[in-house]
Amino acid sequence: MRTSIATVSLSGSLTEKLTAASRAGFDGVEIFENDLLAAPLTPEEIRARCADLGLRVDLYQPMRDIEAVPAEEFARNLRRARHKFELMRRLGADTVLVCSSVSPLAADDDALAAEHLARLAGLAEEFGIRVAYEALAWGRHVDTYDHAWRIVEAAGHPALGTCLDSFHILSRGSDPKGIEDIPGEKIFFLQLADAPLPAMDVLQWSRHHRCFPGQGGFDVAGLVRHVLRTGYTGPLSLEVFNDVFRQAEAGPTAVDARRSLLVLQEAVGTADLPAPVVPTGIAFAELVTHDTEPVSALLGALGFARTARHRTKPVDLWQQGEARVLVNTGPAVPRGATGLAAVGLRSPRPSAAARRAEALLAPVLPRRRAPEDAPLDAVAAPDGTELFFCPEPARPAPGEQPGGPAEPPRPDWRADFEPVAHGPAATAVRRIDHLALTQPWHHFDEAALFHRGVLGLHAQESVDVADPYGLLRSRAVTNSDGSVRIALAVGAAPGDDTGRAQHIALATDDVIAAARRFRAAGGRLLPVPANYYDDLAARHDLTEEELRTYRELGILYDRDPHGVFRHCYTRTVGRVFFELVQRDGGYRGYGAVNAPVRLAAQHAVRAVTGG
Amino acid sequence: MRTSIATVSLSGSLTEKLTAASRAGFDGVEIFENDLLAAPLTPEEIRARCADLGLRVDLYQPMRDIEAVPAEEFARNLRRARHKFELMRRLGADTVLVCSSVSPLAADDDALAAEHLARLAGLAEEFGIRVAYEALAWGRHVDTYDHAWRIVEAAGHPALGTCLDSFHILSRGSDPKGIEDIPGEKIFFLQLADAPLPAMDVLQWSRHHRCFPGQGGFDVAGLVRHVLRTGYTGPLSLEVFNDVFRQAEAGPTAVDARRSLLVLQEAVGTADLPAPVVPTGIAFAELVTHDTEPVSALLGALGFARTARHRTKPVDLWQQGEARVLVNTGPAVPRGATGLAAVGLRSPRPSAAARRAEALLAPVLPRRRAPEDAPLDAVAAPDGTELFFCPEPARPAPGEQPGGPAEPPRPDWRADFEPVAHGPAATAVRRIDHLALTQPWHHFDEAALFHRGVLGLHAQESVDVADPYGLLRSRAVTNSDGSVRIALAVGAAPGDDTGRAQHIALATDDVIAAARRFRAAGGRLLPVPANYYDDLAARHDLTEEELRTYRELGILYDRDPHGVFRHCYTRTVGRVFFELVQRDGGYRGYGAVNAPVRLAAQHAVRAVTGG
Repeated sequence: MRTSIATVSLSGSLTEKLTAASRAGFDGVEIFENDLLAAPLTPEEIRARCADLGLRVDLYQPMRDIEAVPAEEFARNLRRARHKFELMRRLGADTVLVCSSVSPLAADDDALAAEHLARLAGLAEEFGIRVAYEALAWGRHVDTYDHAWRIVEAAGHPALGTCLDSFHILSRGSDPKGIEDIPGEKIFFLQLADAPLPAMDVLQWSRHHRCFPGQGGFDVAGLVRHVLRTGYTGPLSLEVFNDVFRQAEAGPTAVDARRSLLVLQEAVGTADLPAPVVPTGIAFAELVTHDTEPVSALLGALGFARTARHRTKPVDLWQQGEARVLVNTGPAVPRGATGLAAVGLRSPRPSAAARRAEALLAPVLPRRRAPEDAPLDAVAAPDGTELFFCPEPARPAPGEQPGGPAEPPRPDWRADFEPVAHGPAATAVRRIDHLALTQPWHHFDEAALFHRGVLGLHAQESVDVADPYGLLRSRAVTNSDGSVRIALAVGAAPGDDTGRAQHIALATDDVIAAARRFRAAGGRLLPVPANYYDDLAARHDLTEEELRTYRELGILYDRDPHGVFRHCYTRTVGRVFFELVQRDGGYRGYGAVNAPVRLAAQHAVRAVTGG
Repeated sequence: MRTSIATVSLSGSLTEKLTAASRAGFDGVEIFENDLLAAPLTPEEIRARCADLGLRVDLYQPMRDIEAVPAEEFARNLRRARHKFELMRRLGADTVLVCSSVSPLAADDDALAAEHLARLAGLAEEFGIRVAYEALAWGRHVDTYDHAWRIVEAAGHPALGTCLDSFHILSRGSDPKGIEDIPGEKIFFLQLADAPLPAMDVLQWSRHHRCFPGQGGFDVAGLVRHVLRTGYTGPLSLEVFNDVFRQAEAGPTAVDARRSLLVLQEAVGTADLPAPVVPTGIAFAELVTHDTEPVSALLGALGFARTARHRTKPVDLWQQGEARVLVNTGPAVPRGATGLAAVGLRSPRPSAAARRAEALLAPVLPRRRAPEDAPLDAVAAPDGTELFFCPEPARPAPGEQPGGPAEPPRPDWRADFEPVAHGPAATAVRRIDHLALTQPWHHFDEAALFHRGVLGLHAQESVDVADPYGLLRSRAVTNSDGSVRIALAVGAAPGDDTGRAQHIALATDDVIAAARRFRAAGGRLLPVPANYYDDLAARHDLTEEELRTYRELGILYDRDPHGVFRHCYTRTVGRVFFELVQRDGGYRGYGAVNAPVRLAAQHAVRAVTGG
């Protein structure tokens, strides 16, 4: 199916918007009137620009308050329409959107509305233009898609059809099944947007909080299936009003938008993408730093041993149990910017995983390796983190690994590393429990969709966490057995540094022993205020000894219906810190209830140390 | 009355919050549990800190899901309560907030709720603590203040009373009149918050969008009047959850908060402030610049004449009609930062105006003047703009100038300026029509409240304006005859520079002549895209000649039920540009409909010139 995007969904000048839409692979655009008015280009120049960019002008929009108004007003509307139809001819647009009237002058008179729309369509026909009539969710008298369709049907004009908009339909709670009663050739256009639930005032909701399909709470795919059953052959077009997208760079937003449509098309069966290959574990986390000393000290105190060094690059492998951390001093990293740059994901079929990522517009990374290195497929996540798909023998994990041909065996990535002499690692840490990655402010919803769509992970509900200087949002994506868990976080505001810290959480069966070992090895744990433990005593039935131990070490505590979670934090190096976590009895969360205390403690440490 | 503020209303660490509340003049605080948990201070230390700062700990909050729960759960609750009461004793807090249960376990059983609350109050009494029970708007069974009061009454325990919260009452649309049926001594606490209308989901509304009284749409003063009639003698306390305040610096937010309570107390008759002295005109606008050349060129082309120079400071007075612009090269201003630094407001009683401003916590500015200069009262607005109250003979303007003793005559500020030889000014510009001032992102609502409360101006509805790179918000404050109009604007995001431009709009009776004169004198007007005029032709019945003229000069057009507005813009110098405006037939707006076109044109110019 053809895909299209409304210029209002992207930020910048009209030229920037068209370029971004074209680069992201859209086939067409809806040109929003204000974007045209503000552009220094003539309609003919816009048309030529679109043609150069391979974009069709699928829709011009909108016309408002056209129908069921007093005669004098309608005459003025026809006059205005003639102007706009002339403009559309210059622009090369053949479909105009007409929204149901919101004017207090509009009559509750379907026959009059049909008559007016038929007359408008008659005029449009002279210009070779079609009129697509859409019910606004806050239309004065016409606010449901079936009502709009009854009027279009009554008007009975060949140049008049209806425009369906998933926001207006689903925000009203209308049943989209009735769409199937509309003949496909009378559906002139289909606009798609998702939105978070629950609702606020519908007008505000629509104008500020729409999002791309799959980023909100609507069943947009269900609606599209109904539309497709009518025989509709027009484009899928995204019309998203969103305060965040208005500020974000148009290029990444357009890619995000196209990806959401690809995932949607896959869901409704009109796109054939390589099936997802769900990762089965975290092979490694890679830190980049300008100075290995603080990171090495931290890893050493945590019980990791430096077991190997890359044959051709300045990269060390640190290991404990199945937890592997690479420390890379190769890239030019500014002082203090030590950060998590790459994640190795175990994949039963790495090439297929990379093909899916590429089909979903993830930048495929050049393999910066020596000829003898193991070939690793890698793509960039929206936050710039490099994701490596590391081969591993296929394991039977029902429901997780969709069928697909087994790939020829490849050398293990660890073969690129040369063992070095080392002392024994500790045994407290078993593996990486989860990674917490801070996302760019403007692309938080994109990140969740990326990890869901590209990697086939499940996205959990997003939670708000109070930081002393603003609210953070956090959302976890996981595979079904919890062997891959990534917590995506975003700060309170663009440019806000509060949320920039990333962390690596290490799973242990005995967090108390692990914490003591860390301290004995000279590590410093994040201090937790005494008041926290007084509250813990009030909330939970813990023994005095337990409480004393937690208080002494700075261990935080949470409980869910499944089990118990105990965790503690190291100090931060650059942007990175570590967490030791013990999950008992199937606890599923991430200790979000304790995050405000952790964040305040980190602020307090920074205030003292400046680091 | 005593005033108090919840620590959750301010950002930062608990210490920062307490300091800010104290500096702003609050008498007490509500300590929010999470702030205490995250603090490194013991309860005793917090108590001592509060005492040092002159703050009483008026409330500890909250306890949740206490009442009408199963017996086993309630037993656990009492256990938890005992812990908290011990903590409160250490903290020196004598009132605890209990919110109505939201737990799915809670029974719809008022008798059980009353029994549980009475038992809790009995325990509290042993610690010298009172329990204030509050209906949450989203409480499971108890969600209105009258329902909560019926339960408190039925419980009949002396240590049990009710807490009223304006948000929970007004967001539900409850009639606050019924408050008067509650005995004042049983109202243990009063929490105040305003909120914008219309509503979204009430929980989201409450957690993210509360604001200080007078900054939203609630009749908070009306509610407080009902509470006062009961004989309530407790504090007025602000409990405001707001995403913006969470990020803003605590100090200014606390001042903003106190000011809102002062205005509220004045409205309900419990504070005696100097009456507002509404300004009767704009005496001057003052630009600061490092380099007079570009500003002088612009003023000259606009038809201003440099008529005088300050006797002791590097300040020039430019004049045309009643429009006066001061150009000040005194302060150290970075290159390119030419900006509007001060506004002179004509005031019938300048000293009284300054006294009111001071009473409402506006910083009074030191008079940086030579001994022989005319004494001018001045205060700083929240955005740092200096507001000078310039004496002028009282004019009869009914409704605008509240009674008050006439002040002894003072020398005119212009007496400080020495006339210089100058050519004739043009006559096109009559006076300053309005000033547009960009506000700091975190303090937009504060700015409107300031101009309303301190200066007695009327605030109009705020409007959203689409900029290519984000939404701007704009809100005008005016006096009743329109001789003082200030448009307050805010950018799309903190740190966003889009909205940083300020401008001075000059009133003319003939914008076409003024624009032509400006161009003939070498001035450059902001170019407006041709598409704008095609749309104008479609929307309005304008003659070909009119359209040709507007197009040629870059004049924008708007119409409201009262009249017609035509306006055009100069290029920007530093942060400042000028607008020429012609209002005909009583047009009341500011051409907001044209703002997106203007903003896009300004972006386009910047993209080309970098300026």
